[in-house]
Order: sequence, then structure tokens, then C-alpha cells
Amino acid sequence: MIDAKTIFEPQTVALIGSSTLREKVGMASPELFNDVIFNMKRCFKGKNLVIDVGDREFKREDLHEIPDLAVIMLSPDKSIQVAEECAGIGVKILLLITGGYKQSQREQLLELKRKHGIRILGPNTIMGVINTSNGLNTSFERGLMPKKGNIAVVSQSGGVGSCLLDWACYYGVGISKFAFVGDKVDIDDVDLLQYLGNDDKTKVICLYMEGVKDGRRFIEETRKIAGNKPILVLKGGTTQESAQRAKTHTASIAGSDEVFDAAFRKAGLIRVCDAEELMNSAMALAKQPVLWGDNVAIVSNVGGPAILAADAVVRNGLKLAQLSKTVRKKIEGLYVGVDAANPIDLIADARAERYEKVLNLVLGDVRVDGVLVINMLKSTFFEPRDARVIEKVAVKYPQKPVVDVPAGGEDFAKVFKVLGRSSIPVYNLPEKAACALSALRRYGLVVKKH
Amino acid sequence: MIDAKTIFEPQTVALIGSSTLREKVGMASPELFNDVIFNMKRCFKGKNLVIDVGDREFKREDLHEIPDLAVIMLSPDKSIQVAEECAGIGVKILLLITGGYKQSQREQLLELKRKHGIRILGPNTIMGVINTSNGLNTSFERGLMPKKGNIAVVSQSGGVGSCLLDWACYYGVGISKFAFVGDKVDIDDVDLLQYLGNDDKTKVICLYMEGVKDGRRFIEETRKIAGNKPILVLKGGTTQESAQRAKTHTASIAGSDEVFDAAFRKAGLIRVCDAEELMNSAMALAKQPVLWGDNVAIVSNVGGPAILAADAVVRNGLKLAQLSKTVRKKIEGLYVGVDAANPIDLIADARAERYEKVLNLVLGDVRVDGVLVINMLKSTFFEPRDARVIEKVAVKYPQKPVVDVPAGGEDFAKVFKVLGRSSIPVYNLPEKAACALSALRRYGLVVKKH
Repeated sequence: MIDAKTIFEPQTVALIGSSTLREKVGMASPELFNDVIFNMKRCFKGKNLVIDVGDREFKREDLHEIPDLAVIMLSPDKSIQVAEECAGIGVKILLLITGGYKQSQREQLLELKRKHGIRILGPNTIMGVINTSNGLNTSFERGLMPKKGNIAVVSQSGGVGSCLLDWACYYGVGISKFAFVGDKVDIDDVDLLQYLGNDDKTKVICLYMEGVKDGRRFIEETRKIAGNKPILVLKGGTTQESAQRAKTHTASIAGSDEVFDAAFRKAGLIRVCDAEELMNSAMALAKQPVLWGDNVAIVSNVGGPAILAADAVVRNGLKLAQLSKTVRKKIEGLYVGVDAANPIDLIADARAERYEKVLNLVLGDVRVDGVLVINMLKSTFFEPRDARVIEKVAVKYPQKPVVDVPAGGEDFAKVFKVLGRSSIPVYNLPEKAACALSALRRYGLVVKKH
Repeated sequence: MIDAKTIFEPQTVALIGSSTLREKVGMASPELFNDVIFNMKRCFKGKNLVIDVGDREFKREDLHEIPDLAVIMLSPDKSIQVAEECAGIGVKILLLITGGYKQSQREQLLELKRKHGIRILGPNTIMGVINTSNGLNTSFERGLMPKKGNIAVVSQSGGVGSCLLDWACYYGVGISKFAFVGDKVDIDDVDLLQYLGNDDKTKVICLYMEGVKDGRRFIEETRKIAGNKPILVLKGGTTQESAQRAKTHTASIAGSDEVFDAAFRKAGLIRVCDAEELMNSAMALAKQPVLWGDNVAIVSNVGGPAILAADAVVRNGLKLAQLSKTVRKKIEGLYVGVDAANPIDLIADARAERYEKVLNLVLGDVRVDGVLVINMLKSTFFEPRDARVIEKVAVKYPQKPVVDVPAGGEDFAKVFKVLGRSSIPVYNLPEKAACALSALRRYGLVVKKH
């Protein structure tokens, strides 16, 4: 196992680039160099050593101190020269941001590893790594830093990683670590996953992958991790044509999709269909307990969206909970006109008090394993602040997940302002909430089997 | 066929409610009455007659003029008394906002229809109807009015309709007409669809339904319309349990999902899975030509999202276009390092000029039927204003649809500001764009068959 800890938790980082040289291919540029310096100076709690090589050659005397991690933002030939110097003085990890390396240059890097024991992340990592705990942020998107949280992301693709990072920042998804693995000349995703598996700041791991170098190792190692914390995986290159493309894109061996699917199941990884499902499922797993059974209750202040939720619950392999008779009777006794057959329709005039009483009864029912709450604002009397009661009740039942759906556009935005930072995951459509519950169920089954 | 024109295009509307009476069930309340008056006074270009009955009985003398449309916001028994007076003086259409009617009361309404020829929308329409052309807006959400456009929405459910209305307003989806059919004691969705089929302000029709009263009529009539303009349908109650629920919810006969699926296919309706897909597909159909063949080209400035797009294109039954050799060579000759195998990777430094040249070549290729463009901002040099070039090129190829994906959160929001009101539909993930293209393809096949 490599010392991946140094990648995310270095004491001293050298940022090595040039404020004068611009390379068309591979994205070495004075602006990007400047942006990484900006982000690191603004966020990083350790020590930054900034080395601007200008148009001269890098010398080891440029470093007044030996950094744990050297981040290199130069063209391939210049990067290799810097790498050689760094390896010679005992730098532990090289992070190579830029791309465009020839095969011979990759071999030069590996030779440095063999000779000096230095380890290499990249090249072509694009955004590099982010650690929200110590402020490490080698991305060149000025000012971009996700909210602190317990979801880690590892991406084999710069573009998908950037999309996920952008998504996480925009929608306030709490992130622990973020890593772009790049061309994987040395350190690969499994190395990073092993570190994240032991990282107590990380509760859920998200992986975007296109292929693997060593399938057996991938399954064995991810399986060990998946017993302790969920790994969600989005796989690119699922069709023959796109797999061919993925092969040239990240130099990965892409097998048939069925093979990957079987491997993911064997390892206990939870596969998702797109970036939104990845983030939505991660949010559910980060905030809520797993679903220990199939039985979902739907509690709503509107009829139609509850029916769509019921459809989606069943489509996701879950069941509509059959409430016990006593609970049904209690609910219907409390509120005239409320039909407590699941989905439970609280009617449009339901406010916090009705949600609180009914959620308490429903979550207390042994026949219910989890609850999908719908609280629209449009066409109802519900106010955004009423949503607080959902968390208030949910925390009393730590074995049963609760997710919330203020369905729509503005309605979602308003309730998200109230619940976005709470322990209740919020989704803008019932179908997305049902899908998140299915991730909680799938991980529940992984844990049971482990 | 009923005179549905009067529902959406009345000259004079009577708003009849009470500023003093409050009914717990059915949502008759002074506030809602006030809100409808507010919306109508603010928006409606015709004549509003506001009749506040207070706690007395409505008399026909309250109306100084005979309205085409009477909107009644009173409890069932009071509404029926008003309905009788309106029917007697020749009002054409009654719109009954409130719910809670007994079967005997529904029959009283139908008796009025038989006797006087008055037609009834509702009861329980919740939001009633909206026409963005003449400002008719009987919804009680103060100030809520979607942007003018050519998408019509008909909803059997108040909750789903409210969610769609909220979505349309929040995401700037251009709407022509919006109708909540409510309990369908008289006028039903098919009546409204017939009107919308002939409405020159409407290009695309969206329908949320849970069931039908007359399956044969539904298929026959929607089939006629679907030959001229696309009808997208979201069906609630697709599982046995939820179908049972839908039956009590909207008093519709819900058959098995397979029967509905076959019916939709027979009629040429395009079925979607959730409210977002409904709005996304409608946007594509409203803004772009249909897809006349299966061959989709992907033009992107990032690798991974293009691979996810390729996966989604194939998953949606479409194909990755095989570009002709000359076009491939031309593109690769223009830009060193650009790989013009589909997906076409323009590389991270692509700006407007490169997109313009390549899109022209790709859209000009007979082997390409439509294009999915990806232009991320994060990790690339692309600027939001560069996106304008996509529309500039697309309009030159009116037979080939083009959709755009600035994948992510902030990236999407920034490009949406530039393209949101243009003819290019914009999606926040490649999977959603591929799904929208599949709606364009499915409607292309409907048109060919007709």
C-alpha cells in the first residue's frame, strides 16, 4: 500500500510552475499556475513553497525545505526535469497536473519511482486533489472549494470530476476529499480508495471509472472497503463504441459491461446511472441510516406526486409498506378526511403539527423501514419552515431513513434553504428520492452480507 | 366537441367567491379568493367581474353583464346554487376551483348541463386554467405566471400540475396554456387536448394522467392530434398498488400498465418517466426539429462527459454517427490533437471559433442526424458567451436537432443565462440531453408513420 496519506495530508507543498512559459497542449500556463497558487494560499493550512521557474531550469536549491508533496504544472519535458530533482532530494509524492506525456516520458517517471521510491499521481490530473479538512486544493478553478462534509470523490476523468466538483459546490454537497487520478502512471484509484477506506473524515466514497488495470485487485480491495463504508460507482464506457473511446481516453482496459456489473456486485459496490444519481445517493448515505427492509411509507400533502413516488418506489425494487391497522386507525382518528392507506395523504392544509404527529406514528410502526416525505408548497398551506419538523422526528428513529421531496423548482429551492444543511436529504422529484432510498437499501444488503 | 375555446379565451370572466366564509375542506377561503382576484386583475386582458357574495346568497343581479366563464370558489352547496343561477342566464362555462363534492352534487351539476347546455370544468381543479397569451390565470398562487411559450400542460392531478407549473416558472419553460382538469364531472382531458391540438399558440402538449374514462375515445382523439403536434404523457399509477390509489385519487379507471403502454404507442404518444423528463422533452420538441434518423454526433470539450453521453445515446436506442472520412479528415486537419472519431473531442482549450467550424462540418455531414454538444466551463477555457455560436450554426441546419450540455451546477446556470431563451435546449447532464434527443426521435417516427 502506498503512502496515500501524504497526497491528502502533506505538511509542506511545493507549487512548481512558470509565470512566463505557455504550452498550448497539456494546459501548462501562467494563469493556471497563478490560480493554483491562489487556491492554495487561500485555503491550505500547511506550508506552501511557490517556485516560479520562469524560463530557466529548476534547481534543487530553489527549495529551501523538502516538501512532502510537489505539485508540478509544467510541460512534460520540464516536469520530468523537476521530477528528477525532487526525487533526488527525497520528496515523497509528485502530483503532475498537466498532460500530453509520451510513453517514453511515462517510463522516465516510473524509473524515478523504482530508483528513489518517489510516488507519482498523474500526469494529467487536471484538478489534482482537494482536502476540505486542511484546505489542500490544487485545482486551477479560482476560488472553487466544496463545503466540508463526509463524501469523498475519486474520478478517472478530468471532465466528469470537474462536473461532480461543480455539482457539489453548487448544490452544497459536503465533501471530505476529492481526487482526480489522471493517467495513473503509478498511483491508481484503488490506492486512493484504500486510503479513503481508512479515512475517518470520509463516510461515503464516490467513484467515476472507465476501466481498471487489474480487475482482481480492484474487486478484492474495494470489497474490503465496501464492508465498512459504501462505495458508489458511475461507470463510463458501457457500450461497445463508447468503451473503445474510453480506452483511448484513460488508457484503461474496458471489459464488457456485464463483466463490470458482475464485478461491482461481487465487491458490494453500488452502481448508479449518472452524476446526479451519484451525488443524490451519496447524500442519502452520508446523512441517513441504511434501509434495513424493503417497506417504504410515503407521507404527502398532495395526491399525484405521492402516486408517482409509489410508482418509483416499486420500480426501484422496494415495496409500499402495509401500515399496521392500529397506526392507520390512529392517524385517521386524528384527522378527518386523511386517508392513511400508504401513500398517506395528509391533505393540502397539513402543516408542521400534522406532519409531526403522523411521522411519529409511521416511523414507530414496525412494518415501516423508511419514509419518503413529500411536502409541496404550491397549492398547499405548507410553509418552508414547517419542514424542520421532519428532521425533529427523524432523529428519534436512527434505524429508519427519512428523505424529503418538496417537488418542483422554487418549492425545492425554498425548502432546501431550510433543510439543505440538516441531516435530511432533499430531492426535487419523488423519483429521485425513491432512487436514493434504493441506494440505502442496496447498501443495507451489502452490510448484511458482509 | 365542446366549446373549450371559451375556457381559455373568454372575453368576460366572473370571479365568484366570498371574502368572509371559510370552509375547512375543499379549500374555499377568503385568502384564495383574494389571490385569484389578484392574479386575474394583474394579468387578464379581458374583463373581470368580481362578485364577493360575503355570507349571503348569490343572485343573478350580481352580474351586470353575462360572463362567458364563471370561476366559482365556494363550498359545494353554495357553488351549486351559483351554478344554477349562471346556467339560467346563459353563462357558457363553469370553472369550479374547490373540491369536496358529493356524488349527488355532481349529478346536480350534470343536470344543469343537460338542461341549459352549460359546460363544467372541475370541480376540484385547484389551480384552474392559465393562458399566457391573454393573461387568464385562475391559480391562487399569488404572482405565479409562467413565461409565454408554446408548450401546453394538462394535468389530472392538482399536485403534479402544481409541481409542473412551479418547475416551468422556475426554469423558464415557455408555456402557452395550462389546465388542471380536476374531477372531470363533465369536461375531460380529451376535450382540452382537442382544443390544444387546434391551438396555433401550442406546439407541444404535455399530459399528466392517472387513468381514462373512455379508452377508445382517448386513443382515437389523441392519435388525430399526435399526427400534427407531439403529445408527451406522464402516467401515474403504474404499479398495482399505486394504480389502486390513483383510482381513489382521480376517480379514473386505471388499467394495467402494459395496456396503457400499448395504447400510448398506438396513439403515437411519447411516454416519459418523470416530471423533469416531461419538461426536458417538451423543451426539445418546442425548440428543435425532430430527429429524422438514429445517428447522433457528440461534440465536446471534455472527454469523460462525452463518454457518458455516448453511453446514454446508445441506451436511448440511438446510434453514434459514423462521420464520413472527409469530414473527419477536415476536422483533424484544422486542429492538431483533435480526435474526430465520434464523440469528437475538441480539447479543453476549444472556444467559440473551434465549435463553430466543427459544428458546421458535423451538421453538414449526411451521416449525422443530430448533435449533442457538451461545453463545460470548469477545467476548460470555454466562456459562457461562446455558447452563442451553437445557435448560430444550428439554425443553418433546420432539419437536424442540436441540444447543449454545460454539465454541472454553476456551469449549467451560467450557460443557461446565455442560451436559456434561445432555440437551443440546455441540459445539466449528458444523460438528460440524450433522453431529450430520444423524444425527438420518437416523435420523428410518429410523424413518419402518420
